Amino acid sequence: MAYPSLAGRTDRMQSSTIRELLKLTARADVLNLAGGLPAAKLFPMEETQAASERALARHGVRALQYGPTDGFPELRAHVAAMLPGAQPDQVIVTSGSQQGLDLVGKVVLDPGDRVAVAAPSYMGALRAFDPYEPEYLTVPSDADGIDLDALEDVLAQGPKFLYVIPDFDNPQGSCMPAARRERLVEAARRHGVMLVEDSPYRELRFDGDEQPTLHALDPGNVVHLGTLSKTLAPGLRVAWAVAPEPLKDWMERAKQASDLHTSTFTQAVALELLDDGILDARKPALRAHYREQCHLLADAVRQEMGDAFRFDLPAGGMFLWGELPSGSDAQAFFHTAIDHGVAFVPGGPFYANGGPSHTLRLSFAQPTEQELQEAARRLGRAWQAFQNGA
Amino acid sequence: MAYPSLAGRTDRMQSSTIRELLKLTARADVLNLAGGLPAAKLFPMEETQAASERALARHGVRALQYGPTDGFPELRAHVAAMLPGAQPDQVIVTSGSQQGLDLVGKVVLDPGDRVAVAAPSYMGALRAFDPYEPEYLTVPSDADGIDLDALEDVLAQGPKFLYVIPDFDNPQGSCMPAARRERLVEAARRHGVMLVEDSPYRELRFDGDEQPTLHALDPGNVVHLGTLSKTLAPGLRVAWAVAPEPLKDWMERAKQASDLHTSTFTQAVALELLDDGILDARKPALRAHYREQCHLLADAVRQEMGDAFRFDLPAGGMFLWGELPSGSDAQAFFHTAIDHGVAFVPGGPFYANGGPSHTLRLSFAQPTEQELQEAARRLGRAWQAFQNGA
Repeated sequence: MAYPSLAGRTDRMQSSTIRELLKLTARADVLNLAGGLPAAKLFPMEETQAASERALARHGVRALQYGPTDGFPELRAHVAAMLPGAQPDQVIVTSGSQQGLDLVGKVVLDPGDRVAVAAPSYMGALRAFDPYEPEYLTVPSDADGIDLDALEDVLAQGPKFLYVIPDFDNPQGSCMPAARRERLVEAARRHGVMLVEDSPYRELRFDGDEQPTLHALDPGNVVHLGTLSKTLAPGLRVAWAVAPEPLKDWMERAKQASDLHTSTFTQAVALELLDDGILDARKPALRAHYREQCHLLADAVRQEMGDAFRFDLPAGGMFLWGELPSGSDAQAFFHTAIDHGVAFVPGGPFYANGGPSHTLRLSFAQPTEQELQEAARRLGRAWQAFQNGA
Repeated sequence: MAYPSLAGRTDRMQSSTIRELLKLTARADVLNLAGGLPAAKLFPMEETQAASERALARHGVRALQYGPTDGFPELRAHVAAMLPGAQPDQVIVTSGSQQGLDLVGKVVLDPGDRVAVAAPSYMGALRAFDPYEPEYLTVPSDADGIDLDALEDVLAQGPKFLYVIPDFDNPQGSCMPAARRERLVEAARRHGVMLVEDSPYRELRFDGDEQPTLHALDPGNVVHLGTLSKTLAPGLRVAWAVAPEPLKDWMERAKQASDLHTSTFTQAVALELLDDGILDARKPALRAHYREQCHLLADAVRQEMGDAFRFDLPAGGMFLWGELPSGSDAQAFFHTAIDHGVAFVPGGPFYANGGPSHTLRLSFAQPTEQELQEAARRLGRAWQAFQNGA
């Protein structure tokens, strides 16, 4: 067979431990606190059906024809209107925020370039940047987001950009207070480092007050990524990047080379849903659901694991991030947990340059109340067994 | 502003002459023979509406949730069943065939690697590969496809793969006879060079007999790209790559990094359309339309331009490719044509390493009969003016 030799960048695309681990979570007898799936029971099924009908009626063949690379103008205008400081011509509609991350990497990263990320950081972002072969600089992060004193040292090392999720971070669930955002934006500008703000969970706030986006604080130095994946449905693959020129134009060229444009059909459907005011209408239900799920799991885990799992209660998002007793091996515990019928994600792989072995992430988004409680019980039993060397 | 320096690969993503030219074709007073849009009047509007309803009813939340990176299993099975020699686990659903091209480039091309392409060749493919900074080796091509004697020399120079559109090539409209396909596949295997077979127009045959796909002739050495863009609707962005292992697995990893997966909603809609037998049902109308359009434009152009535009009548697809008298400058003529209210694509940019200046491409897919005839008249008048030095 004439299978060609692979590109050097595939060295950075090797099968990860985590990919293998996550395969185990698909077992039918395993309660899954590992996945990052949003709550399907809140998906707007009927609204999407009605929106499909309206989209085809309103846009006609335009909803099925090739379209502009940066997206439907009406959708770009809608996005800009949702984000203070954004202009429609700075918006590019992407096939999920994952594509926004890929496009940023494609246009700015040469092999060996530096990228600053939180430790821990969203794995999907690392996987998006990896093929462009950057070197990661990591900034420690706590319940209020990244540590700004440590950040100064990192920014001084000249990364091409800092990637950050200010609202209900994946995996930490942290939310940066406004004062820290202001300092972050000031420091980035002072060091001449662009910010990439990933904002998928922002609307899933269930406690406290809204904080300004980094983009609103400094639109000229921030690429902002937003999405309908967590508020409406990820299967639409409708998201957006808001980027200052000339970066937006370069990302548009990269997108044209990558997939021409995002589905005009799903864009037209998304536009109908948005024009119908669906986001505001659904926000209370979304927030109530995620608050309830979060508290349910937090209470159950506290009861079943006690001090063995310490975490900060998040004010939004989909994740509980916490620590086993120092020195524990969360990856080894993962296998015990699977044997007891419950799955989570060990924290190690979230650290771009390696990190502590005793952290882990639980997702409370998708399971039923009963499943959350049973999952916590299984975690507790697994922990007992793990401590007893089982 | 802290705008980061760009990646070196953006040198290969500069604004092209053609991009600037094509902006002129959007003028309302210009009849457009330049675009590559399929005939919108044949889009399955009602069928798509009905399929959306069925997709949501049949798959429920699965049609709106995250899905597997390589696509809906049922859709992959359907694709494999359409392509002799393909197995479902070799299929990866892509967001348009453009993404298939990008993924191949991402996993096999290092800067400076060689890629063999026809001269002329599809510009979108060159744009997909460009960010991975290959060097192009070009093979002359005629109405029967690429020249196999010239190909031997090119294959001997060790390209990573040969990119080819065997059925109704863009831009040439050529179709390779079976014997040439067999020789091509044999030569590629002998030289250890993989083939990338792009097959968007295969179903748009309106004359002659179906020829075997390259994939059917040698499934182990061919990445086959298929799509619904020309048979149903490009706005769905549902296409597929069929690749031998381990390439399929690498493309899947690259896709996960690029956009996680193609919209589950459009995949579910496409599956409903396919399960309903829509391709077979529509084929006669598609073929009749493109045959009629092709002959209309060919006859009108012959009448208006006479010997000044020489072309071979294609047996399928969407394009008439031809030559002005040797030494003519098609790009200069383009500007005269725009002044006369008609647009085409000058042939120069289709040559990866430069080529003759007197070729051009006309698309007959989209305009009405009246528009095709008026466009030909304007072309004729523009040619008169151009010869008179206007």
